[in-house]
Amino acid sequence: MSRIITLTTDFGTADGFVGAMKGVIYSLCPDARVIDITHDIPPQDVVSAAFALEAAASHFPANSIHVCVVDPGVGSDRAPLYVETRKHFFIGPDNGIFDLVSAGRFVRAMKLSNPAFFIRDSSATFHGRDIFAPAAAHLANGASIDDMAEPVSSLVRLELSQPESKGDGIEAHIVHADRFGNLVTDLRRFEFDDWNRESRPVALTLCAFEIAGISRTYADVPEGSFLAYFGSSQRLEIGIRGGNALKHLQWTLPACRGKVVTLDLL
Amino acid sequence: MSRIITLTTDFGTADGFVGAMKGVIYSLCPDARVIDITHDIPPQDVVSAAFALEAAASHFPANSIHVCVVDPGVGSDRAPLYVETRKHFFIGPDNGIFDLVSAGRFVRAMKLSNPAFFIRDSSATFHGRDIFAPAAAHLANGASIDDMAEPVSSLVRLELSQPESKGDGIEAHIVHADRFGNLVTDLRRFEFDDWNRESRPVALTLCAFEIAGISRTYADVPEGSFLAYFGSSQRLEIGIRGGNALKHLQWTLPACRGKVVTLDLL
Amino acid sequence: MSRIITLTTDFGTADGFVGAMKGVIYSLCPDARVIDITHDIPPQDVVSAAFALEAAASHFPANSIHVCVVDPGVGSDRAPLYVETRKHFFIGPDNGIFDLVSAGRFVRAMKLSNPAFFIRDSSATFHGRDIFAPAAAHLANGASIDDMAEPVSSLVRLELSQPESKGDGIEAHIVHADRFGNLVTDLRRFEFDDWNRESRPVALTLCAFEIAGISRTYADVPEGSFLAYFGSSQRLEIGIRGGNALKHLQWTLPACRGKVVTLDLL
Repeated sequence: MSRIITLTTDFGTADGFVGAMKGVIYSLCPDARVIDITHDIPPQDVVSAAFALEAAASHFPANSIHVCVVDPGVGSDRAPLYVETRKHFFIGPDNGIFDLVSAGRFVRAMKLSNPAFFIRDSSATFHGRDIFAPAAAHLANGASIDDMAEPVSSLVRLELSQPESKGDGIEAHIVHADRFGNLVTDLRRFEFDDWNRESRPVALTLCAFEIAGISRTYADVPEGSFLAYFGSSQRLEIGIRGGNALKHLQWTLPACRGKVVTLDLL
Repeated sequence: MSRIITLTTDFGTADGFVGAMKGVIYSLCPDARVIDITHDIPPQDVVSAAFALEAAASHFPANSIHVCVVDPGVGSDRAPLYVETRKHFFIGPDNGIFDLVSAGRFVRAMKLSNPAFFIRDSSATFHGRDIFAPAAAHLANGASIDDMAEPVSSLVRLELSQPESKGDGIEAHIVHADRFGNLVTDLRRFEFDDWNRESRPVALTLCAFEIAGISRTYADVPEGSFLAYFGSSQRLEIGIRGGNALKHLQWTLPACRGKVVTLDLL
Repeated sequence: MSRIITLTTDFGTADGFVGAMKGVIYSLCPDARVIDITHDIPPQDVVSAAFALEAAASHFPANSIHVCVVDPGVGSDRAPLYVETRKHFFIGPDNGIFDLVSAGRFVRAMKLSNPAFFIRDSSATFHGRDIFAPAAAHLANGASIDDMAEPVSSLVRLELSQPESKGDGIEAHIVHADRFGNLVTDLRRFEFDDWNRESRPVALTLCAFEIAGISRTYADVPEGSFLAYFGSSQRLEIGIRGGNALKHLQWTLPACRGKVVTLDLL
């Protein structure tokens, strides 16, 4: 079965940049299967890209190659990166983009340093086409990463908030909002379960809004009501049934980040 | 030849939800061919999804599997559905989404009820990933729908207007607007032909605008003029040559729906 | 290896038009590989489409078939076109869309005139589905273009500005802006090199802004500064490091076109 190479970028598609990357991959590895995850990451928003990968990458077959190019530092000295986890391979800039998906448990991380595996006459502004796409294609062709790259000792980390204990309660923080305006927090289900081992009822507060308990799904609350639930990435989310919580609170994606959700045991 | 599985959703792509569905399908059925129809259906707009399927699905090869997830009722008791027509298979929520494409002439309809064919620990908020994508992959692998689902006696219907006779004339209604601002009505060519068997000239009225006759294509009228024509889905449409009728009338997609187009024989 | 057919349109995806084209291709040529370049060309913006193809098409393997449908003249007497370059095949309307990618050096150009290779009962408004998609599929199946088309003597040209000499200097013009707000000009690297054979330092002026020299990449200037550089398509571009030059200048894509960038030797 031909190798899967996924693409995640902030390029949009209108400029042909993504088309150029696909062309490079198919030219080097004609039987690759290039699959779009997304090209609609907000421009240069590394955090959103990390969440998109968290949502999608783990579901792909073992040995898939995930190319992710959200790269505000292109042309600077940030390293072009190869990260290998137990199941997958990731290629993109060293800016924290793979932090959620690897969760620090990578098998190895290397810097793509051998220009023999770049496009000849590489540009200084489009490493997606000139370095990352060819690296994925060469890997899919069976090239050895040891020929292409050299070990790195540390990776850039994503600056993401963590839930904080406050007395008996927890302060979670909004880290993301999805297309439907649901607000995603930094509190994961296992952390919640650790905190609330006796499965006691909880009360949540977001700004002036009080939310009673954790729901299973939207249909558990009346139309138009706020609810809290664990979403498909196992993070606590705040939504409005049949509505858009982000718009309701008159926030934007950048503005919602860092807002506090307080959880208290009842 | 490997099975075609198409995807039609309102997920956008930025959150990685679509990527997750693709990953699930390729993990279960590595030689599937997953093809994007669209992920840009307006959020929770079941009617727009039904029109996108009407425009696209019938052109695919026989035995294609069409997964469509525009699902405001996810997590409620609406059924996860399998619909089989003479040519194709459709998978998605029971909310009328397949009403136009099946035109009530389905071979059978079943409720996906066997959790052995779901993703283990299915979420209550993301049936696209956890129920619909795996169902499509299992079908593509040759699983029997009888093992996966049970018969249903009736389906939810789409609430769509129908053209109405008014004396010698017809009142059609706008049901959709496309990307170019062309206004699509509920009047189909065969209904028009039934009404106007003698092929007499007709006059059309939309709000205060009078449109003379049915044109073959945009080029038949001067730049900037309104025209009426039968579009590529064989429905009467109103457009402006080189312009955007929706914007010209200062309407939005939701606001245009239900507006009346009157047709009179001359 | 199955033939690659790429798609470049201004259809968006929400209406199912692109899905219809994909369905037609797979129905006629089941083992084609249909690859999206973009469907987000601004409606009827032939120039943007020409630039997207310039950026993407050349990177695809030899003998790829590129279908491009940005077609304000659909239904008029503009010809449906086949253009063959030394490496690739292009199919779309005769409106200049292939002007940049062929650079006038095509092997042959023909008009798709044989309705036996169209979809039966072709519409007058959707040649993408009814003429261009089937043409690509028939070509991929090995049909002879001589059976499908007849020679044309001339092609419609794209009306694009050219850089102009002004004394010792050059006036370049902005022709495009990308998703990141970088302003692309009509001055190509080889023209710049021809003009500045001694590699002397240059000064650039865009409106009231003075830009010192040509940078290699964004990281060469401070955050928030304007810079000039040769972009990934080998054209002179003006950008702002970490910013959006188009927005900063309060321009839109249509408004930016034609603005003058002056280059002087120091």
